[in-house]
Amino acid sequence: MIVRDRPGLLRLFFILRGSIVLRILPQVLVILVLSAGVVWLRTTHPGWAPAFNGAPFALLGIALSVFLGFRNNACYDRWWEARKDWGQLLYTVRDLGRQTLMLDRDGEPRAARRQLLRLAMAFGHALVCHLRPGGDATKPRRFLSAGQLAGFESSRNRPDFLLRQMGQVLAELLAGGHVSDIQYTMLEGTLGRMSAVLAACERIRNTPVPFGYTLLLHRTAYLFCFLLPFGFADVLHWGTPFITGLVAYTFFGLDALGDELEEPFGTRLNALPIEALADTMEINLREALGETELPSLPQPKGHVLM
Amino acid sequence: MIVRDRPGLLRLFFILRGSIVLRILPQVLVILVLSAGVVWLRTTHPGWAPAFNGAPFALLGIALSVFLGFRNNACYDRWWEARKDWGQLLYTVRDLGRQTLMLDRDGEPRAARRQLLRLAMAFGHALVCHLRPGGDATKPRRFLSAGQLAGFESSRNRPDFLLRQMGQVLAELLAGGHVSDIQYTMLEGTLGRMSAVLAACERIRNTPVPFGYTLLLHRTAYLFCFLLPFGFADVLHWGTPFITGLVAYTFFGLDALGDELEEPFGTRLNALPIEALADTMEINLREALGETELPSLPQPKGHVLM
Amino acid sequence: MIVRDRPGLLRLFFILRGSIVLRILPQVLVILVLSAGVVWLRTTHPGWAPAFNGAPFALLGIALSVFLGFRNNACYDRWWEARKDWGQLLYTVRDLGRQTLMLDRDGEPRAARRQLLRLAMAFGHALVCHLRPGGDATKPRRFLSAGQLAGFESSRNRPDFLLRQMGQVLAELLAGGHVSDIQYTMLEGTLGRMSAVLAACERIRNTPVPFGYTLLLHRTAYLFCFLLPFGFADVLHWGTPFITGLVAYTFFGLDALGDELEEPFGTRLNALPIEALADTMEINLREALGETELPSLPQPKGHVLM
Amino acid sequence: MIVRDRPGLLRLFFILRGSIVLRILPQVLVILVLSAGVVWLRTTHPGWAPAFNGAPFALLGIALSVFLGFRNNACYDRWWEARKDWGQLLYTVRDLGRQTLMLDRDGEPRAARRQLLRLAMAFGHALVCHLRPGGDATKPRRFLSAGQLAGFESSRNRPDFLLRQMGQVLAELLAGGHVSDIQYTMLEGTLGRMSAVLAACERIRNTPVPFGYTLLLHRTAYLFCFLLPFGFADVLHWGTPFITGLVAYTFFGLDALGDELEEPFGTRLNALPIEALADTMEINLREALGETELPSLPQPKGHVLM
Amino acid sequence: MIVRDRPGLLRLFFILRGSIVLRILPQVLVILVLSAGVVWLRTTHPGWAPAFNGAPFALLGIALSVFLGFRNNACYDRWWEARKDWGQLLYTVRDLGRQTLMLDRDGEPRAARRQLLRLAMAFGHALVCHLRPGGDATKPRRFLSAGQLAGFESSRNRPDFLLRQMGQVLAELLAGGHVSDIQYTMLEGTLGRMSAVLAACERIRNTPVPFGYTLLLHRTAYLFCFLLPFGFADVLHWGTPFITGLVAYTFFGLDALGDELEEPFGTRLNALPIEALADTMEINLREALGETELPSLPQPKGHVLM
Repeated sequence: MIVRDRPGLLRLFFILRGSIVLRILPQVLVILVLSAGVVWLRTTHPGWAPAFNGAPFALLGIALSVFLGFRNNACYDRWWEARKDWGQLLYTVRDLGRQTLMLDRDGEPRAARRQLLRLAMAFGHALVCHLRPGGDATKPRRFLSAGQLAGFESSRNRPDFLLRQMGQVLAELLAGGHVSDIQYTMLEGTLGRMSAVLAACERIRNTPVPFGYTLLLHRTAYLFCFLLPFGFADVLHWGTPFITGLVAYTFFGLDALGDELEEPFGTRLNALPIEALADTMEINLREALGETELPSLPQPKGHVLM
Repeated sequence: MIVRDRPGLLRLFFILRGSIVLRILPQVLVILVLSAGVVWLRTTHPGWAPAFNGAPFALLGIALSVFLGFRNNACYDRWWEARKDWGQLLYTVRDLGRQTLMLDRDGEPRAARRQLLRLAMAFGHALVCHLRPGGDATKPRRFLSAGQLAGFESSRNRPDFLLRQMGQVLAELLAGGHVSDIQYTMLEGTLGRMSAVLAACERIRNTPVPFGYTLLLHRTAYLFCFLLPFGFADVLHWGTPFITGLVAYTFFGLDALGDELEEPFGTRLNALPIEALADTMEINLREALGETELPSLPQPKGHVLM
Repeated sequence: MIVRDRPGLLRLFFILRGSIVLRILPQVLVILVLSAGVVWLRTTHPGWAPAFNGAPFALLGIALSVFLGFRNNACYDRWWEARKDWGQLLYTVRDLGRQTLMLDRDGEPRAARRQLLRLAMAFGHALVCHLRPGGDATKPRRFLSAGQLAGFESSRNRPDFLLRQMGQVLAELLAGGHVSDIQYTMLEGTLGRMSAVLAACERIRNTPVPFGYTLLLHRTAYLFCFLLPFGFADVLHWGTPFITGLVAYTFFGLDALGDELEEPFGTRLNALPIEALADTMEINLREALGETELPSLPQPKGHVLM
Repeated sequence: MIVRDRPGLLRLFFILRGSIVLRILPQVLVILVLSAGVVWLRTTHPGWAPAFNGAPFALLGIALSVFLGFRNNACYDRWWEARKDWGQLLYTVRDLGRQTLMLDRDGEPRAARRQLLRLAMAFGHALVCHLRPGGDATKPRRFLSAGQLAGFESSRNRPDFLLRQMGQVLAELLAGGHVSDIQYTMLEGTLGRMSAVLAACERIRNTPVPFGYTLLLHRTAYLFCFLLPFGFADVLHWGTPFITGLVAYTFFGLDALGDELEEPFGTRLNALPIEALADTMEINLREALGETELPSLPQPKGHVLM
Repeated sequence: MIVRDRPGLLRLFFILRGSIVLRILPQVLVILVLSAGVVWLRTTHPGWAPAFNGAPFALLGIALSVFLGFRNNACYDRWWEARKDWGQLLYTVRDLGRQTLMLDRDGEPRAARRQLLRLAMAFGHALVCHLRPGGDATKPRRFLSAGQLAGFESSRNRPDFLLRQMGQVLAELLAGGHVSDIQYTMLEGTLGRMSAVLAACERIRNTPVPFGYTLLLHRTAYLFCFLLPFGFADVLHWGTPFITGLVAYTFFGLDALGDELEEPFGTRLNALPIEALADTMEINLREALGETELPSLPQPKGHVLM
């Protein structure tokens, strides 16, 4: 995620970091060159290049805007929902830290509390690895015992394995009479909310916007921008490259941004900072455990927080 | 569901799988041929074919875009809600696996736990058959006893029958004093969430977008595309087939995609992979039962997961 | 609700059932005749009919599309929410059938269970009568005792009366020690969800989209379509009736569809099949009571399910 | 709220009640006169009035439609959410009536039940006064004892005071052993839902759509309509007043309707009928208390329900 | 937040407070001067300044409107969600005041109640400081004991620290047998809702709309407005500055408003009045504690409530 103050008017045009401009530069350049070529041909050899009347382009371009707008909206909703899910995870583990205060008494309960909170820290880091390929796989392991590690490694779904481990701790507390069934139900409900976040993140990760939809919009946007110079060359003359370039920048840019937002757990600059959120969760839980030497909160590097 | 990486620019135009292009090819070809015919007629025998001024088409086309956009949005929302329901089912059965850990003690409770989780596996597969005609009807039967099978076969609503069987197990646990009323209520609440998913899926399956709405948009889109060549033949000349073809591809394509997304449990390529999700549920539950020889997670075949 | 497969391309244009076309035919015919008249006048006596430049119509027509789109969206949301409410009712009464399995033991509890489920069947049918004028008022009565009938008839809100009767059964079970307070609370929560559905349906039934909004859009749409021929007669000549007719069909049709969807409990063809849903509820509950001679599920008659 | 059947086509144009037309008549008349003046000047003294080309107006007008559409959507959402909140209040107090049936036994519980339901009736009426300036302040007082009245009058938030009184009754029932802690929690949860409705209504009442947003759209809409005649006078001639009047009616009308919907608890005709809803609540609760001489349900007066 | 009645028509154009006009004045002036310059050049030295045909601008402008509309919608949703979160906080602390009435008995419970409500007052003020840089940091401290202050100062997340303190009070009440586990769970659930509000506010505060999206729209809007005079100078002549100025005012204004709404906890005029809300919470809680000398509710100063 890009974290920076809104730049002033002049600097606005010279920011590359976080801009989509580098990714779509090749396509925009192709359109610019094509536009210039068409204008040159129409000026020097009018018969060599076809030219259309520009009127139908307004119709097509506005239709395309409406459809691109809807797709971008859907992608943004995925991205924002993913952020909400992580926000819910954050307060759910804080709830766990607070709800287990009642276990903070000598003997087995205190050990169980520590165990639960350490498993919750592992859950956050394991979820990052589950969602983002190339996540740091050593982070969750630090919080697990040797016995837990074996099951963790062989599990088909590691975060769910950790939740079952936490459920096991709760079941033992209940069997040992350390919590009443009401208290057990409350804590189990907290695990259930973590489980809901896991499933929601898996859904967003594994179910892209329908491929046919993306494909149709990509194709139409490209064909539209390639036809544009033929429609406006006779009307705009040497202004054609400017205008078609601006249109191509807007349409390709929104299309590319939609692609980035569609994968909120990816590794592109506009992806969500889930590593930083997992680190924050760890710090919150350490504080709840009474640790006083806490790491500092994650800070953006070069305006980027991942 | 199509599962594939986003293709590069050139390959973008040559993907057929998952594209809607094959389904709408006939209509688009008709428009292309009609356009060419109209242009030929207007060029050679101007009086034989009518020609309209193209200006009103912009108005009509933009109106159509707005309405198509809204319909596609509604269809996408149905599709995405259906996916959310299955995601909720996934974590609900995981919750069941974790919540029943407290029953994992010798005697009747452990047998009841095994029974509950096997019924939950059957529920997933039975829901697939309930929603998708032609689903593999042998899958849910594998988990049922002979006595259960009779009731299962004759039930008006098979997934609901399985939930009632699970409710029966819970009621017996309660009557036998193996769970407290609090624990019973928690587990019953979990069944209630499975019941909610069942009803939501039935709603999406049985209640299409109002037929009059679909009909109106289909008709308008077709009439619009058939009239288009008459409006632009005199202005675009031999560019007409290109432009009208592109417009027809966009409008028919979005319309056809809307149809596919409207039925998220269907068998078209953009439908949801509910069979794979039911298999995943089975694997998660088998792991929760402590089985170690697990099948591997479902993989897409030829970029398609069903 | 219209239930039918999507028709092929040719049949698409000849379906009347479920189409909005019959309801708006008079208005569309008026526009067609008016258009033809204006074209004839402008052709033969140019000075007798005014003619406007068509450019401002694009502006007005697109604005109208945006506003009509928003209204239709709001109406569709009401319709879909109403369907969600009934879906929630369906699974809530199924939950009731499952949750009361714990009462399925000899003596007073079994009688109370039967009483609760019969009152729930009556609730479904009474809700139909409450929402749809002209519903079959004998259906809910079949499930009530003579004593209940008197109160039912005189109640200001009959479905709410039935819920209070169910609450009375629960209170007696609690007072008699047949259910614990936890079990009472769970069952009362289920009644609460039925109560929520009742209030939501009443809201949708009694609170139309603000009248001023509907009026403004109706008026603008009519004035727009009546002015249209004057704007395009000189440009489209005898193509005018075709184009203005298509525009009128689209705008009047969407407007009329919005009216139908605004009243999802009405008796028009696109209304929700709440009678069929209440019958389905009854069948589900009969099955939960162990009855084996069940009526078959409701089937559409002539593609229509009400 | 306007309650009336949809009028036929001809009457549609002659309804004033509930129409926004009277409120925006002055502005529309100004535009009509201005248009006529500009056309007259351009016809007789072409050099005395400036005239613009109308093309840029399409751009500006469509942009304005999109933004007005979004604002109206936001205002409608507020209005509909407010109605949902009152619907929730309605079923919550009905729940209270049903849930307290378990208190309907001789002695203190029955008195407490009566006290709770009377306080709930007072809550509805007090909420009306809290939200709508000029509400009938005597209505809530009828249900309060002298001791309660003093606190009620001096409270900073009267509906919240009533909820605290109800909480006090519950706390006394709990302290007296008349309800178990489970039953207490259930009833307290019902109060919590009433508290949520109170806060939601306060939010909608006190937080308008951001002022800058409203201001920007008002100003742009007015400037646009004032410039319109200059853009179309040369093209539409004496058709200009008709078209600009229609545009002004649509834009000013939607703007004014947005203003009305923004304040759903106001006293304009399109506001919500919260007094009628509070009266309905009172009737429902009286019926739950077993009263048989009930007032009739509120009826609209002259198509208006407030 | 601006709090004022809707102004009359004439005053509408002379309000500066709360208007966005001062912030975007420089850019609009640049566009005005540029327009005038281009028109002057095209009039006097036609060959010195390029001129484009204006048609493509309609396409680009409408596309831009659609995208700006979507962004403004997203920003408004954030702003409104933030207000909802604070509304939820308000009723949650009122719930706490009411739910703890059962503790209002002599001895430890009453002291614990007082402690809980004072910590809740501190929570509101601490949340303001957490979200709005430059908040009054002395306000939350007034409610804390010396021992609490140390932990408060050194905490990584001060509002969460206060919630843990409240959780500690609850755990002690439970351990001391002053509340049952059911009552503990109810109160802990209330803390959980405060925790949810905290996480939601942090999410909105820390996760802006994706930077690439904002950047793309800013750049396109500026480039569009700078090119506009070249497109319309030959058509509108000296009307160009008026029209381009109006377009620039609308587009820059909406863009700037989106920026303001994106940060609902900021210090600009359209930000939410969270300080006033925290003060209101304090008054509500003081009243619940039985204090009679209450401060008056926060009032806007010069139409502004912060």
